[in-house]
Amino acid sequence: MWAVLVVNIVLSITGYCVILNVVPKLKDMFVKAHLSGVDLNKKNKPEIPEATGVITSCIFLIIMFIFIPFPFSKHFFDKEWGFPHQEFVQFMAALLSICCMVLLGFADDVLNLKWRHKLLLPTVASLPLLMVYYTNFNSTTIIIPKPLRFLLGHDLDLSALYYLYMGMLAVFCTNAINIYAGVNGLEAGQSIVIAASLIMFNIIELNGDCWANHLFSLYFMIPFFFTSFALYHLNKYPASVFVGDTFCYFSGMTVAVVAILGHFSKTALLFFIPQIANFIFSLPQLFHILPCPRHRLPRLNRDTGFLDPSVFQFKEKSLNSLGCLVLKVYRMLGLIKVERIDNDEELFQATNCTLINLALKFAGPSHEKNLATGLLVLQVVCSGLAFVIRYPLASLFYDR
Amino acid sequence: MWAVLVVNIVLSITGYCVILNVVPKLKDMFVKAHLSGVDLNKKNKPEIPEATGVITSCIFLIIMFIFIPFPFSKHFFDKEWGFPHQEFVQFMAALLSICCMVLLGFADDVLNLKWRHKLLLPTVASLPLLMVYYTNFNSTTIIIPKPLRFLLGHDLDLSALYYLYMGMLAVFCTNAINIYAGVNGLEAGQSIVIAASLIMFNIIELNGDCWANHLFSLYFMIPFFFTSFALYHLNKYPASVFVGDTFCYFSGMTVAVVAILGHFSKTALLFFIPQIANFIFSLPQLFHILPCPRHRLPRLNRDTGFLDPSVFQFKEKSLNSLGCLVLKVYRMLGLIKVERIDNDEELFQATNCTLINLALKFAGPSHEKNLATGLLVLQVVCSGLAFVIRYPLASLFYDR
Repeated sequence: MWAVLVVNIVLSITGYCVILNVVPKLKDMFVKAHLSGVDLNKKNKPEIPEATGVITSCIFLIIMFIFIPFPFSKHFFDKEWGFPHQEFVQFMAALLSICCMVLLGFADDVLNLKWRHKLLLPTVASLPLLMVYYTNFNSTTIIIPKPLRFLLGHDLDLSALYYLYMGMLAVFCTNAINIYAGVNGLEAGQSIVIAASLIMFNIIELNGDCWANHLFSLYFMIPFFFTSFALYHLNKYPASVFVGDTFCYFSGMTVAVVAILGHFSKTALLFFIPQIANFIFSLPQLFHILPCPRHRLPRLNRDTGFLDPSVFQFKEKSLNSLGCLVLKVYRMLGLIKVERIDNDEELFQATNCTLINLALKFAGPSHEKNLATGLLVLQVVCSGLAFVIRYPLASLFYDR
Repeated sequence: MWAVLVVNIVLSITGYCVILNVVPKLKDMFVKAHLSGVDLNKKNKPEIPEATGVITSCIFLIIMFIFIPFPFSKHFFDKEWGFPHQEFVQFMAALLSICCMVLLGFADDVLNLKWRHKLLLPTVASLPLLMVYYTNFNSTTIIIPKPLRFLLGHDLDLSALYYLYMGMLAVFCTNAINIYAGVNGLEAGQSIVIAASLIMFNIIELNGDCWANHLFSLYFMIPFFFTSFALYHLNKYPASVFVGDTFCYFSGMTVAVVAILGHFSKTALLFFIPQIANFIFSLPQLFHILPCPRHRLPRLNRDTGFLDPSVFQFKEKSLNSLGCLVLKVYRMLGLIKVERIDNDEELFQATNCTLINLALKFAGPSHEKNLATGLLVLQVVCSGLAFVIRYPLASLFYDR
């Protein structure tokens, strides 16, 4: 086992070096292909190559293709054991789902797909995964937390609902990372924190009964960590490349894949606390209960060089009653700042409902670099919280 | 078995209809993304959306994802039999290789990859396939044709060389279709002829010992046939879309996948006679032994509206001795037409070394529509020839 992990780490580090070398060389290719975007938060508004996540995801796939034979090497030499096709198919299905998602992400970057595609396509991409889950495990029973057992009993078989949950997990993970973005280094940075947290969790659980699942997860998470880390170097402030939807989709799907096939989807979600908070906070704008401008990333104050929260404008009577209620609650909780615009009696503006703008509202105008660092520190703190929930707290709700 | 095939056909026909509906609607999306090319062989040189093969390949993948559970349905209901993970992993690996190739093809269309990537990447994409071949079959012994047995014996174990051969098969199939292109409808057209030939071959062999392999191939070839056929409608003269490298790579890989996993790679190659001829004929230009202009597709004669063979220019002394020899042989065999250019004593021009130009040299200037039809008829005739070689003739060389 340890030898195979060492091979995995060596391949991952090689991939890390390849990415740092290759991506800067291929930048021109992306700009020529009109795959570039303006970095709105810089004074000179530079044109930056977009969707370079496709390179890191391809290198991740190549690492995995080269790596796959190693975990099965003992079966090649010792034919007596019989080849574990059941384990092998998990690798294939996992890579198929990830590869599909990279393809769809890249298609999104190039073609600007519609929202309905963004929800439909991860569902389709997770089908092979669910099918392998069905054939290999088909365990759809969840253990009920102690405080609810008087109501629901000790466990509950969700059957088809469990598959729906897993399909939605893939959709959620891919989109949650995609909408928690817009500051240099945040997409890649949150991915490396999540990957590092999952690696720690997997290592802890290697001593448990389900060690095989956690080993499987490690085989994917280690290369994912290193390839994302390489991309982070290029994407952090001041960004020389943008990661694109390709990377966000790839990242979300890779985590969803190991969470599903490794049977730790609830724990995996614990490492998404900032993404979940951002998603829930964003919902009123995503569902157009509140107005949603095209860009919600913070805006640069050209005098100070600092970022201010971005805003949306509205007239009170244009909101429906649900919109008014949400606005009231968010304002009461201090989540958004609402101001009357001086030159018009009826026009208001409110800060956009994203975690990034909320951070700026609390911390005051910040430099982009500090904002990104702050948000990543938040991600690390939330991961620490997740470990507290998963280990000491969970024993209150579940039998060990 | 028949019920499952019916499901496959129904899904394929659904996919066919979806493509005919969806592709025209998405055309603008491609043009907006700068994925478009000029149709050089039309008088008004229209701008046509490029790389639309990505839509058909995605729909092919979706069809396959929905289809996969059906061949295994009896194992879902009757748990006694044990689930055939070994067969299931073949589906996953096949789709993984195809999906990878679609991703790489689309990346090529968008980013214009270099030649070395075009050779490296199909090799990488075929790794999962070779690994499944190794774990499931690992039969690397070939039967020697009777006339050679006195030299090599009855059979020969190629071991690692056989894997090299299979890897190269994937590289060959993807690139062979890609370079036999440039006339409206030819890429999609040759794919449907090859698919139809393989479907016929598989149906014939369903009565044989290896019926399971041929059934597996049918599951892929039928959706491939229908999705390519839909694309052919949109790509035939006058083309309203271009298929792009995406489609050529997808098409070549899909054939390579069933040929490798179905154990009929030699027969599959028989259906590539025009592609092989075109490839061998092209080699001197591909390896720059003869000059190779950027475009080798026929050129439009604006007065007649017909296509003439395209040419490359050269000075006799600029060719090395190998180049001179190749030129002499090709000229002697009547494969190219060499002319002195009047206004210069030393400058010559010769028709480009592609099957398309050769066809124009023999048939005289032709309308693009007739040229495409002629080349597809040639493909059908060659498929007929392939069946003659495979059945009556093969018995001379092999024991039945």
